[in-house]
Amino acid sequence: MQQLTIVKIGGELIDDAAALTDFMDAFASIQGLKLLVHGGGKLASKMMSDLGHEVKMHKGRRITDAQSLDVITMVYAGKINKQLVAQLQKRNCNALGFTGADGNTIVATKRPIKEVDFGFVGDIEHVNTSVLKLLIESQVTPVFCAISHDENGSLFNTNADTIASELAIALSKDYHVQLYYCFDKAGVLKDVKDENSLVPLVTKSIADELIGQGYIVDGMLPKIHNCFYALENGVDTIHLGKLEMLKAADVAHTKIVL
Amino acid sequence: MQQLTIVKIGGELIDDAAALTDFMDAFASIQGLKLLVHGGGKLASKMMSDLGHEVKMHKGRRITDAQSLDVITMVYAGKINKQLVAQLQKRNCNALGFTGADGNTIVATKRPIKEVDFGFVGDIEHVNTSVLKLLIESQVTPVFCAISHDENGSLFNTNADTIASELAIALSKDYHVQLYYCFDKAGVLKDVKDENSLVPLVTKSIADELIGQGYIVDGMLPKIHNCFYALENGVDTIHLGKLEMLKAADVAHTKIVL
Repeated sequence: MQQLTIVKIGGELIDDAAALTDFMDAFASIQGLKLLVHGGGKLASKMMSDLGHEVKMHKGRRITDAQSLDVITMVYAGKINKQLVAQLQKRNCNALGFTGADGNTIVATKRPIKEVDFGFVGDIEHVNTSVLKLLIESQVTPVFCAISHDENGSLFNTNADTIASELAIALSKDYHVQLYYCFDKAGVLKDVKDENSLVPLVTKSIADELIGQGYIVDGMLPKIHNCFYALENGVDTIHLGKLEMLKAADVAHTKIVL
Repeated sequence: MQQLTIVKIGGELIDDAAALTDFMDAFASIQGLKLLVHGGGKLASKMMSDLGHEVKMHKGRRITDAQSLDVITMVYAGKINKQLVAQLQKRNCNALGFTGADGNTIVATKRPIKEVDFGFVGDIEHVNTSVLKLLIESQVTPVFCAISHDENGSLFNTNADTIASELAIALSKDYHVQLYYCFDKAGVLKDVKDENSLVPLVTKSIADELIGQGYIVDGMLPKIHNCFYALENGVDTIHLGKLEMLKAADVAHTKIVL
């Protein structure tokens, strides 16, 4: 099987023009087959506010009403995705933008209403890889924004980390998948304020220990659970760190293996 | 060679929800290989006004400044394109959205500044069909919005009729291309107010005659020139009319041949 590099970039990178340029140079330089997943950053919230729409939240989580979904579709699939595609083309990377509706790649169901109706938020049911494989094998680089669909005409806002891990799992049936999560930290840190506290290798038993000791908390906890779920379902290796880890193998970051 | 049906829909259809639903039913029912090109309608201008941006015009033509390009990219490539893709998926048509930057399909240069700087408007230089052929032959239906790029990181607003005809010309090297322009008239009318004045067949000599007699004027004149340019460069047949012409071959419309 061939190697496939999947990179997910978070919203912090989307919001920082200089870092994003740096990232695109690094991503375009990655040899071999690759795929990019991008988050949305603050642009959608800014657009909501520019349009005078209220951003509805519940316990820190966004509620995606019809108006928000419209703005998310415009900002994620339009502005951000197409700028990334055009900038990658400039760097001789033959990029092609996707939502999960395109090529029927990511099928989701609307999150069930329990305590709260989160609106147009989708939980991924399955990934169809046939169109992706066709393109990847022709050296085309799919660029995904965090939108899925239900095969019944509805688009859904979907967590970008989950989009990346579900794509990685589905594609691991045909490729050796290396998954990189680029964000604003050097990796898993014992002390979030001290980059010297980086844990360079996290196995399942190390992760359990770190969680038990209270070192992996908040947003990092679901990220790590997500990583082991992906590794247990076929993904080869996962890397967490700053974009510099894409430039050279010896840049300090966290490598996660089973 | 296989037959390929290319359909272009204008902004009037995009702006009319009932007609658009009707169109998608008709388009999804077309047998064989197909491709869709859509215009933008009034949504981009409405979004500009909602955002408090001024729509700049020169002699009735829009000037695409950076702010307008941003809005156009969001509305055309985001909102409209992704809704069409999701709605076609619902109808079991495996659609995949494109701008000209995606797959490096439509390469353009910025329109030279003469009397007026029209801003980010692109004149098409060439079309790369390799990614499109790969998808079309796997029963995937490309859905294009009217945006091109320059391979140097810039996106451009580009006339949707021209996008359709240039795609049709480029793909006619590998397919028998039938090009349909769906709009709000039954076809070429001698009297724009009387649908009984429809001209069902327009050849080059009939067109010259109609132009000489002053029957083809205003927006129809460049449309007809565009059609003959496409026919002279490999496109088999062009059809102008309402969306109903897609449903049955005997629906009155204008057929254009050399």
